[in-house]
Amino acid sequence: MGLEEDYKKRAEEHQGNDLKDRIWRVIFLSDTPGAKTFDLILMIAIGISVIIVMLESVESINMAHRELFLVVEWIFTILFTIEYLVRIWVVRKKSRYIFSFYGIIDLISILPTYLTILLSGTHYLMIVRVLRLLRVFRVLKMGRHMGEANHLMNALRSSWAKISVFIFCVIAVTMILGTAMFVVEGLIAKNEGFSNVPQSIYWAIVTISTVGYGDITPVTVMGKMLATVIILIGYGIIAVPTGIVTAELNARFARVQMDYRVCGECGLEGHDPKAIFCKSCGTKL
Amino acid sequence: MGLEEDYKKRAEEHQGNDLKDRIWRVIFLSDTPGAKTFDLILMIAIGISVIIVMLESVESINMAHRELFLVVEWIFTILFTIEYLVRIWVVRKKSRYIFSFYGIIDLISILPTYLTILLSGTHYLMIVRVLRLLRVFRVLKMGRHMGEANHLMNALRSSWAKISVFIFCVIAVTMILGTAMFVVEGLIAKNEGFSNVPQSIYWAIVTISTVGYGDITPVTVMGKMLATVIILIGYGIIAVPTGIVTAELNARFARVQMDYRVCGECGLEGHDPKAIFCKSCGTKL
Amino acid sequence: MGLEEDYKKRAEEHQGNDLKDRIWRVIFLSDTPGAKTFDLILMIAIGISVIIVMLESVESINMAHRELFLVVEWIFTILFTIEYLVRIWVVRKKSRYIFSFYGIIDLISILPTYLTILLSGTHYLMIVRVLRLLRVFRVLKMGRHMGEANHLMNALRSSWAKISVFIFCVIAVTMILGTAMFVVEGLIAKNEGFSNVPQSIYWAIVTISTVGYGDITPVTVMGKMLATVIILIGYGIIAVPTGIVTAELNARFARVQMDYRVCGECGLEGHDPKAIFCKSCGTKL
Amino acid sequence: MGLEEDYKKRAEEHQGNDLKDRIWRVIFLSDTPGAKTFDLILMIAIGISVIIVMLESVESINMAHRELFLVVEWIFTILFTIEYLVRIWVVRKKSRYIFSFYGIIDLISILPTYLTILLSGTHYLMIVRVLRLLRVFRVLKMGRHMGEANHLMNALRSSWAKISVFIFCVIAVTMILGTAMFVVEGLIAKNEGFSNVPQSIYWAIVTISTVGYGDITPVTVMGKMLATVIILIGYGIIAVPTGIVTAELNARFARVQMDYRVCGECGLEGHDPKAIFCKSCGTKL
Repeated sequence: MGLEEDYKKRAEEHQGNDLKDRIWRVIFLSDTPGAKTFDLILMIAIGISVIIVMLESVESINMAHRELFLVVEWIFTILFTIEYLVRIWVVRKKSRYIFSFYGIIDLISILPTYLTILLSGTHYLMIVRVLRLLRVFRVLKMGRHMGEANHLMNALRSSWAKISVFIFCVIAVTMILGTAMFVVEGLIAKNEGFSNVPQSIYWAIVTISTVGYGDITPVTVMGKMLATVIILIGYGIIAVPTGIVTAELNARFARVQMDYRVCGECGLEGHDPKAIFCKSCGTKL
Repeated sequence: MGLEEDYKKRAEEHQGNDLKDRIWRVIFLSDTPGAKTFDLILMIAIGISVIIVMLESVESINMAHRELFLVVEWIFTILFTIEYLVRIWVVRKKSRYIFSFYGIIDLISILPTYLTILLSGTHYLMIVRVLRLLRVFRVLKMGRHMGEANHLMNALRSSWAKISVFIFCVIAVTMILGTAMFVVEGLIAKNEGFSNVPQSIYWAIVTISTVGYGDITPVTVMGKMLATVIILIGYGIIAVPTGIVTAELNARFARVQMDYRVCGECGLEGHDPKAIFCKSCGTKL
Repeated sequence: MGLEEDYKKRAEEHQGNDLKDRIWRVIFLSDTPGAKTFDLILMIAIGISVIIVMLESVESINMAHRELFLVVEWIFTILFTIEYLVRIWVVRKKSRYIFSFYGIIDLISILPTYLTILLSGTHYLMIVRVLRLLRVFRVLKMGRHMGEANHLMNALRSSWAKISVFIFCVIAVTMILGTAMFVVEGLIAKNEGFSNVPQSIYWAIVTISTVGYGDITPVTVMGKMLATVIILIGYGIIAVPTGIVTAELNARFARVQMDYRVCGECGLEGHDPKAIFCKSCGTKL
Repeated sequence: MGLEEDYKKRAEEHQGNDLKDRIWRVIFLSDTPGAKTFDLILMIAIGISVIIVMLESVESINMAHRELFLVVEWIFTILFTIEYLVRIWVVRKKSRYIFSFYGIIDLISILPTYLTILLSGTHYLMIVRVLRLLRVFRVLKMGRHMGEANHLMNALRSSWAKISVFIFCVIAVTMILGTAMFVVEGLIAKNEGFSNVPQSIYWAIVTISTVGYGDITPVTVMGKMLATVIILIGYGIIAVPTGIVTAELNARFARVQMDYRVCGECGLEGHDPKAIFCKSCGTKL
């Protein structure tokens, strides 16, 4: 588990007892009481600030509480800015943090508020602050759900090659079927919803994924027959990504049920729970 | 299986032969003829009383049969009240029952009818009586499907941590994608359906779960492209909860079919539960 | 496999060489050339007659070809009647056939056409002829897909207890959530679509199964929030039936990979492919 | 893996060092730098030409850039024609290539453009060029995803018999339920959407697959109840194709991880592929 190891290695780098290292441990770790409190406060702050971004977008609410939102937004921006500067200050390898995924997210989370003063017309950018949500994953990743999330992420990652090949095939199939539908419904029946190929492909994807908005639907008999065929194909293949992930998770489960005994002779791990002798050197376990 | 044990322990507490314990066994157990008859009558009464709650809500039916519904409702309320009082009377640890989940449901099931006399304007509360349905699960839990339900509940419970982490991630992703959709469709194209962020997030959840009502749909090319991306993401990840539950159920299946006996001669484990001799060396197990 | 055994037993009952038994083998079996030809002709006849039932229901087509349909329908009805009478004639245990599932279907398939002469106003009954489709399963059941269909049926049958408990729980949950939705949308917001409890439950089932027609949708903020919760619950639990069937099929796959060796001593079957000694009596296999 | 073997056998046929065989290796193989470059250029050309087919179908874009599209289309058609002729020239067994699946696709990809000169009114045929997309699969099949795609294809192929039996049953069930719905909604309630049987079957398939467009929805109480039953049936059986594919993939996973070595001492099988000593008795394998 690379994640856990990386976590440990970085923890060791900041073992010192000076203020910087102590703050680092509060901010970046999550197993001391101080760190847990910090994580909790941070998550609440992120939660509130994201809710404000959402409420601001509702015109009626924004009208009534514009001043309140502005004040709260500035408080959070200043808090997050302080946090960002402290993070840069305490971390050993500053550039690695700044250009890391979370470092960039931390910066993007505070920039839009400042930009609204410097430049006018950047109000739309405010919405970018919703990306603060991504910061929650950092806390989550280190917290008590690390094992669970890790497990899932690994299963998804190793299924990804298969799933992406599959999704590529699905896209190719929907392109061909969508075009056929464009001919049948758009060209022949002059159905507005299928007036061009990209739109027909959009419909085919909405259909094959079983979303089925119903904003575009076939009206001719031929179109409905073709739609039925597409639906049945979708029905037959929706099983595939599920099958991939499940088989992957199953294999992982089986591996987890392996045993944590270490061979005293050669140090091999990963023995079968029923094994009596080391499979690598033949010593009794 | 904690459920079964708890059931047995409580059965032992009420082994006495006086009236109270005999009634307790009829009401709380489900393996004697009397208890089965009681369960059946109770389920029918719950079923009828829930159907009445539903029919009452249909205005045309309510108009025609208001008196009938009132009479039947009072009969059931009085019956359930008697049942509730008897339950309190026969149970040993009264407070444990009263404040248990089913104790509270039993109380909530009868309260609304009484409140309509005491207070006016509490007619809406009548709908709360639909919670009587939850009482059915008590009967079910003890009945012949206990094994099945238990099996499923356990699999769901141990998958819950993983599924909730996953659903949290899905919510975070839909919040970010919903906001992007708000910018593309709501701010730029002035699409009524995406007029604010919460609404756009609602749309994103409806889409990613493949429900796809179609009350809100993208109208711009950009919006449709973004929707396609969201659908394909949804298509790729809908597999995850299924994979989690299936892997869990698989592991349970495997565990049930496994045996922990070890062969004294060759040390082989993993024998068939019905095996008498070691399949590898022929020694008696 | 009870199906296969039943098939063999009945084949043995009709081993004779007289006309009746020879016809029986053509009609009821499916492994001789004559039987295969009969099955094929029967399936084509069923197919055409079902297509006619469908086309008859399309008013414009029915207008144009009313006479043709009538003639073809009578030809098929007479053919199927002859087939039905021959089936009764050749079968040994007549009452067993007549009151069997397929015997009743065979009768229902021909009755409606005769009823239209005897009684007027029975035109709607004609539609019942679509049940002829069920007769196709008899052919299918005996054909080369018997193994596949049998495999699936067995897996579904042994999952059925679990799936029905699950579906019962889903119905109970949708009843409670649908009622909550009725209060929020129907009583408070006067949304036409949620005007009574049964309608709201219908909506909840459409939503939780991810069908999502969109004919009824929440309009209030509270309603949309509740809908989101219902969708997320649906998302979390749709995995369950899949998990049940998959775990069942997996276990079957594993069992199929078992071995067909029979112990020479005690006659036990179902050994592990890796077993060397009989697990029941210890004899070398 | 028949695919890989066929690939090798054909590679050996064209081992020569003359121009024809060298070109063959660039065009038909994918493991030399030249072949990789060719594949990449081909995929880009296919991608661009398919995008043009799509953009041409959007009337507003087509109006503005008709000349550009015509020129680009002719460039690609000539390039693909040269490629097609070169393919025929370099391949040893010419007729096998010409009448192979990809040979026909290669021809169909270029024909429509020429037909528009020879014949007028064949503009609609242009849309056939979207089938060029299928040519991408040839590149994909040989590329680095061969293993993944192969794995999935094999699993789907061996599940296909089961899935098609299942889909046949689903169609038969939807036909019967759709007809029932036609009686309830179309005949009795005169609901436009259910005005004939084929339309009602289309609705039943849209519903049971959880697509749920919502263009046709029941309006009567009876119709909604029947729809609920259909949805619940769909909910219970959507698990089946998933279960089939997953069980298949699982068995494949398990088979890949299995080893067929038998311990000479105790006869144990099922060793880890990397094991050197028997895990049960410690003997060298």
